[in-house]
Amino acid sequence: MFLLHLSDVDEASWAKAFSTALAPYPVVRQTDDYDPKAVRYIFVWKPKPNAFDGLDNLKAVFSLGAGVDALLKHPKLPQVPVVRFVDDDLSQRMSDYVVAHVTMHHRQFSRFQADQKARRWAQVYPPAAQETTVGIMGMGVLGQDAAARLRPLGFSLRSWSRTPKSVEGVENFIGADQLDAFLSGTDILVNLLPLTPETTGILNYETFGKLRRGGLAGGPVIVNAARGGHQKEADIVRALGDGTLGAASLDVFEIEPLPADSPLWDIENCYITPHIAAISSEASGVRYFSAILKAHEQGEPLINVVDRTRGY
Amino acid sequence: MFLLHLSDVDEASWAKAFSTALAPYPVVRQTDDYDPKAVRYIFVWKPKPNAFDGLDNLKAVFSLGAGVDALLKHPKLPQVPVVRFVDDDLSQRMSDYVVAHVTMHHRQFSRFQADQKARRWAQVYPPAAQETTVGIMGMGVLGQDAAARLRPLGFSLRSWSRTPKSVEGVENFIGADQLDAFLSGTDILVNLLPLTPETTGILNYETFGKLRRGGLAGGPVIVNAARGGHQKEADIVRALGDGTLGAASLDVFEIEPLPADSPLWDIENCYITPHIAAISSEASGVRYFSAILKAHEQGEPLINVVDRTRGY
Ligand SMILES: NC(=O)c1ccc[n+]([C@@H]2O[C@H](COP(=O)([O-])OP(=O)(O)OC[C@H]3O[C@@H](n4cnc5c(N)ncnc54)[C@H](OP(=O)(O)O)[C@@H]3O)[C@@H](O)[C@H]2O)c1
Ligand SMILES: NC(=O)c1ccc[n+]([C@@H]2O[C@H](COP(=O)([O-])OP(=O)(O)OC[C@H]3O[C@@H](n4cnc5c(N)ncnc54)[C@H](OP(=O)(O)O)[C@@H]3O)[C@@H](O)[C@H]2O)c1
Repeated sequence: MFLLHLSDVDEASWAKAFSTALAPYPVVRQTDDYDPKAVRYIFVWKPKPNAFDGLDNLKAVFSLGAGVDALLKHPKLPQVPVVRFVDDDLSQRMSDYVVAHVTMHHRQFSRFQADQKARRWAQVYPPAAQETTVGIMGMGVLGQDAAARLRPLGFSLRSWSRTPKSVEGVENFIGADQLDAFLSGTDILVNLLPLTPETTGILNYETFGKLRRGGLAGGPVIVNAARGGHQKEADIVRALGDGTLGAASLDVFEIEPLPADSPLWDIENCYITPHIAAISSEASGVRYFSAILKAHEQGEPLINVVDRTRGY
Repeated sequence: MFLLHLSDVDEASWAKAFSTALAPYPVVRQTDDYDPKAVRYIFVWKPKPNAFDGLDNLKAVFSLGAGVDALLKHPKLPQVPVVRFVDDDLSQRMSDYVVAHVTMHHRQFSRFQADQKARRWAQVYPPAAQETTVGIMGMGVLGQDAAARLRPLGFSLRSWSRTPKSVEGVENFIGADQLDAFLSGTDILVNLLPLTPETTGILNYETFGKLRRGGLAGGPVIVNAARGGHQKEADIVRALGDGTLGAASLDVFEIEPLPADSPLWDIENCYITPHIAAISSEASGVRYFSAILKAHEQGEPLINVVDRTRGY
């Protein structure tokens, strides 16, 4: 039996699509009447405290989110494999966001918008893409897709990961030891890390101060599309205020929705989007998890299983 | 002898660089004392009315601009070949501009900026790049480069040109007959046409009304990086006002600098840059025209010669 336990999304719609895709395999929702002991797979998004109660024969937890930081903190998460969502469509949408914000900052959008407001015709010429270095933190599924999209645009690229990653045209830096070297050559910092104890608060004032100065006219830029827990918002406000950062694009926040009294809303060179960088589409999600469930029922191993000691 | 006749740029600097590149070939400036009859090549940007007087032995006119619309209107332009500037670095910079503005509009930048101003957290999800069609008007050097950069990003692409152009992944429409068909499937219209009698004023209210509706949430978008003469600014103001257009990015204007009393300055979803999309770099320009001059002196044909009947 396959149990859906989703919050904040249309669970009924997902259930209907899974029923069709998996038939005759039984699919149930939280509110249905079912025997918890019959549940072999649970599909979760923001699970409630009792989500896993009584699921004594669970084989795997399927996570609608690509990031599993919140799920791994669930106090009653059973000791079964957690499969996260990995999907071309999700990567495409994330890269759409990343490319739009990187190129906007590269082309000195804030500067031209300020000039426009002042009705000022001032010809300044942005550098060519080759002269600008984009540093990608996190070179996993999303980081690698972003790199593959940014490369044909001509940007100089570098990446930071825990273990070595050899991607053509991308200079790779590894681990805490090489973080400073990575930052020192980066004009536009793109965060696509998972949220773990090691990466929490990594976007802080000290980090911003280590980015390359002089590359982009307005100062270095950050783009955070991973998790709000990566960033210290007070530090972003300070860094945008004193010129340590030239601009910031933030899709995620320490508290979501971003509280109405956050100072970030009013900062001109802070570009806020409401956690919409990339959404998991129902069609892809159903295709992906149905295939994994069917294969597993036929004895094949699960894929994209989270390493719980690593935290992602 | 090679004569430089440049306005609005640092002629002395170009002259010095050409002298070095061409030595011992003689290089002179407007203000130097020289025999006009000895001039075989002239390098121009915004030439004055008397620029060509007395140049009886001229072999070719070299144009710093990639666009030659203004030059071809010079009443005393001699009947010698006009060589225009074609350059990878220029194309790169133009594509940098085009990609930045296309992706910004695709990601509903205007919408999110308005929400930010209102401190509104409203989750709307932009379509994936594949669901958005970019239509490129003018599929020459710049149009083809822009297409090559947009394609790996995933956009659906179409182009419009005078003669057929077969570029993989780009649906081509040809001539006045197919303009309406081209427009009807376009969400984001990018103009990279040369300015000729046929293309003057082509970005008008009627054209805007033929673009696809329903593709982008805010309405169709135009990006003009070619010439101000292509656009009717009164029509852009009207179309942005009544929703016929969702947004516009304009790098060029009917009158430049854009007059302080233009209504365009104040329109929120009109993105103005002061004709800085792409600049011709001195280093590339000197390399390019020096090579052409030397080759021509050794009997080789000129390249990138403008077709004066076509107008580009
Ligand atoms: N805003 C949104 O709409 C949205 C949507 C989807 C996902 N996300 C976020 O994006 C994150 C990344 O997703 P993904 O699929 O690309 O994850 P992934 O494939 O697991 O990749 C994670 C990358 O981060 C690196 N990394 C992890 N810990 C590190 C550390 N301490 N130091 C240096 N590098 C470290 C990993 O290094 P190794 O390669 O060496 O393991 C890997 O390259 C997700 O966790 C999620 O939070 C956000
Ligand atoms: N804003 C800036 O900073 C900046 C900088 C550089 C250049 N520009 C502008 O960009 C323009 C384009 O440059 P380019 O080097 O790409 O020119 P190009 O190589 O000559 O290409 C022109 C393209 O436009 C097409 N075309 C011309 N007239 C047409 C018509 N009546 N109907 C349909 N298609 C038509 C041509 O069709 P065929 O292929 O069939 O001939 C060709 O594909 C320049 O003329 C210049 O005005 C602006």
